[in-house]
Amino acid sequence: MDFFNVVSVEEGKKMMLETFKEFNFELEEINILDSINRVLAEDILAYNNVPEFNRSTVDGYAVKSSDTHGASESIPSFLSLLGEVRMGENTDIKISSGEAIYVPTGGMIPDGADAVIMIEYAEKLDDSTLMAYKPLSCGENTILKGDDIKKGEKVIEKGKKLTPQDIGALAALGISKIKVFKKPRFFIISTGDEIVDIDEKLTMGKVRDINGYALYSLIVKLGGEVVGRSIVKDDFELLRNSVEEALFLSDIVIISGGSSVGTRDYTSKVINSFNGKGVFIHGVSIKPGKPTIIGEGKGKPIIGLPGHPVSSVIVFKVFIEYFMKYMMNVKENINKTTAILDFNFPSSPGKETYQMVNTIERNGKTYAVPSFGKSGMITLLSKSDGYIVLKPHEEGISKGDVREVYFL
Amino acid sequence: MDFFNVVSVEEGKKMMLETFKEFNFELEEINILDSINRVLAEDILAYNNVPEFNRSTVDGYAVKSSDTHGASESIPSFLSLLGEVRMGENTDIKISSGEAIYVPTGGMIPDGADAVIMIEYAEKLDDSTLMAYKPLSCGENTILKGDDIKKGEKVIEKGKKLTPQDIGALAALGISKIKVFKKPRFFIISTGDEIVDIDEKLTMGKVRDINGYALYSLIVKLGGEVVGRSIVKDDFELLRNSVEEALFLSDIVIISGGSSVGTRDYTSKVINSFNGKGVFIHGVSIKPGKPTIIGEGKGKPIIGLPGHPVSSVIVFKVFIEYFMKYMMNVKENINKTTAILDFNFPSSPGKETYQMVNTIERNGKTYAVPSFGKSGMITLLSKSDGYIVLKPHEEGISKGDVREVYFL
Repeated sequence: MDFFNVVSVEEGKKMMLETFKEFNFELEEINILDSINRVLAEDILAYNNVPEFNRSTVDGYAVKSSDTHGASESIPSFLSLLGEVRMGENTDIKISSGEAIYVPTGGMIPDGADAVIMIEYAEKLDDSTLMAYKPLSCGENTILKGDDIKKGEKVIEKGKKLTPQDIGALAALGISKIKVFKKPRFFIISTGDEIVDIDEKLTMGKVRDINGYALYSLIVKLGGEVVGRSIVKDDFELLRNSVEEALFLSDIVIISGGSSVGTRDYTSKVINSFNGKGVFIHGVSIKPGKPTIIGEGKGKPIIGLPGHPVSSVIVFKVFIEYFMKYMMNVKENINKTTAILDFNFPSSPGKETYQMVNTIERNGKTYAVPSFGKSGMITLLSKSDGYIVLKPHEEGISKGDVREVYFL
Repeated sequence: MDFFNVVSVEEGKKMMLETFKEFNFELEEINILDSINRVLAEDILAYNNVPEFNRSTVDGYAVKSSDTHGASESIPSFLSLLGEVRMGENTDIKISSGEAIYVPTGGMIPDGADAVIMIEYAEKLDDSTLMAYKPLSCGENTILKGDDIKKGEKVIEKGKKLTPQDIGALAALGISKIKVFKKPRFFIISTGDEIVDIDEKLTMGKVRDINGYALYSLIVKLGGEVVGRSIVKDDFELLRNSVEEALFLSDIVIISGGSSVGTRDYTSKVINSFNGKGVFIHGVSIKPGKPTIIGEGKGKPIIGLPGHPVSSVIVFKVFIEYFMKYMMNVKENINKTTAILDFNFPSSPGKETYQMVNTIERNGKTYAVPSFGKSGMITLLSKSDGYIVLKPHEEGISKGDVREVYFL
C-alpha cells in the first residue's frame, strides 16, 4: 500500500468524478405523498395556472374598485347587490359599474370585478343595497388567475430535495406522480478479525461492529438504502466473495474497517481483482481519515473507509455524500449553522482538518465547543452535533471566530 | 364563532398542555437499524465497558512506557520481543520490564504494558530484539478499558431524536433493540366545497387540496405518520362522520381549510359534538394564522388549521409540532441557522409574527431575504426555505440584524 501518493480532498473528488463519469443512479416514478426528501429527476413545469380563476382572499363583496373611490365611513358608496357566488362554483354573472356580489374566501370573483371589499368594511342596507365604507385599489383582496403560478413557468428544478413546500406546489398543479432518483443502494462490509455483530457474544479481544451501524443510519438519513451488510474476517477470498456479492446488489460498496496495515493490503488487493481500474486513491490528506482507499470495480465505486468511527463518518460525508449529490445534481437543503468558536485550534498544514464539535446556546448566541477524545472512540462521535472544517491553507482558528458547523 | 377571545401563542400552548395532561403517545420496541430520527423513550445505560479491554490505537509494540524514557534516534531503548498479539484474540501474556510485543491497531494490549510505540518509531534488530527510538508517556496510543464508555454511565437520554452517532453508540454497547415512541398518528381532513383531490378534474371555481399534501409531507418529515386523509364538503354531518372516523384511527385530528366564516362555524360545531371539552381556543394572536381552532374530542386534540398554505404550516409547527415534542420530551436536534437580515420589517404589535424567508450565501455569509406574496399563495410557501419569528413585544426588525431562521 503506497501512502506516499496521498491526494488532497479536492484532487480526490475530481478523480472520483473523472473515473465515474459514465456512472448513473437509476430513476423511478413515485407518488408525491412518498416523495419527501427524495431528489427530483426532472424539471417541473406548470401545465396550468394557479389559480385557474380570479379568487377572493377574504369574505367580502366583489366590486369594480373604481366604484369605491372616495368612499368613507361618513360617505359610503352605494352599490346594487346581486346575491352571492357559492363556494367552489363557477359563475357567469358579470359585474357592471355600481354592482357588488358576495364572495367567500377562496371563492371565484366574477368577470368585471377587480377587487373585494371585506365584510368588515361593508354593510347591507337591504337585500339589494350595499354600502361600502372604504376605497379599494385594483386587485385588492384578490389573487388573479396565474398570480400564484403561471402556466409554463418552471416551478421546481431537477435536483431539488423535495420539501413539504414543494409537495404543496406539486399538489397545486395537480401533479400526483413525479420522476425521482431511486435511493442509492449501498452494501456495507465490515472487515476485521476482531469485529462481531451486535447479537453475538463479545469475547475478550473482540469489539462490536460500531461503524456498520453508524454508516447504515447515516446512509438512510441521507436518503440512501442499505441493501446488505456483512462482517468478514481478514481473508482475501472471503472479502473478495463479499465484495462480488455487494457489487451485484448495490450501486456503491463500502468496506469499513481495516485500519491495520494488514487489512488495508487485503482491501486493495480485493478491489484490484475485478478487472477494472482498481484502487485509484491510496490515502487522502485529510484529518482524520488519511487511510482512505477509493477504487472502481465493475463500473462501481468501492470505498475502503478508515476504522475509527469519526474518520469513517467524516470520509463518508466528504467523498460519498459529495459523489451522491453531484451525480444527482442535488441543490442542497441547508444542514449547517453558524456558531462562535469557543476555543483555539491549531492547523495541520496541508491537510483538510475536521474537528467534531457540540453547539450550545448561551445568551441567545450559538457557540461551538470542541469534542475531545482519543481517535477510535465512539463517544468522540456520539457526543458531537457536527463538525467544523479547516482548509489545508488555514493557519488555525481562534476563539471568537465565527464558523460554520455542519451536521451529520 | 367568537374571535374576541383570541389568545397569545404562549397562552394557547399552555392551554393545550393543560387540556391534554392525561394524553400519551404509545411506545414500541424496534431494531436500532430502523431507529434513525425516532424518539428514544428510555434512558440508555451502559451494561458494559467500551472497550472491554485495553486496545491499541496504532500498529506498534506494547511496552511499559518507563522502558522508553530517554530513548532517542541516537540512543534507542533495547527491548526483548515476545512475538505478536493476533487481531481479535485474547492474550494471557504479561509484559514485564524490558519486554515488547507486536499489537495491530485495535488489538488487545497485554497486562503489564501501558503504552504502544508506533512501528514508525521502532525497528527490529533481530527476531527477538526491538529498538525503540522514542520515549512514550503512560497510556500513549491506547484506549483503556472503559475509556470510551464506562459501565453504568448514562449514554443517551430519553427524548433524544436518534442520530447516526447515537446508533453507533448503541451498537458499541451491543444494544440491538430499543424502546421508542410510536410515530404519532395523524388524520388530515380537508374541508371546503371548493376542494378537489389531485387526480380529480379541476372545474372552474375549484382548487386542489394543496394543504392536505403539504401537511402530509410535513408530518412525515417531522416523524409522524398519516393514517388517513379525506376531503369533505361543507356539511355538518359529513364533517362529523369524518372526524369520528379520524378520532378512532389517529392520535391527532387535523381539519384543514375553513378560512371562510361558514366553514369555521361548522368546524367548531363538529368539534363540540363529541361530549368532550370541545373547542377551547377560538383564534390566536399570531400572524399569519389568526383563525386557528383547537379543541378536544374523545381525549384527543382536534385542530382546525387556517386555509392559507403558509398559515396552515406555521400553525402546525407552532402548536402541533410543539405538542408532539413536549409529549415525547424531545431534546431537539437543531433545525435552524443564523442569518443576517436583508430587509426592514415592521412589527404587528401584540401578535407573534412569522415571516417566510429565503437564505442565500453572499461572500461567505448567510443572509435572509423575505419572501413576499399575497396570503393564500402556495408559492409564498414553496419559494421559502424557512421563517423568522417576531415576538409580540418587538418593535420591528432592521436590515443588518442577525436572527435565527427556522426550517420547516
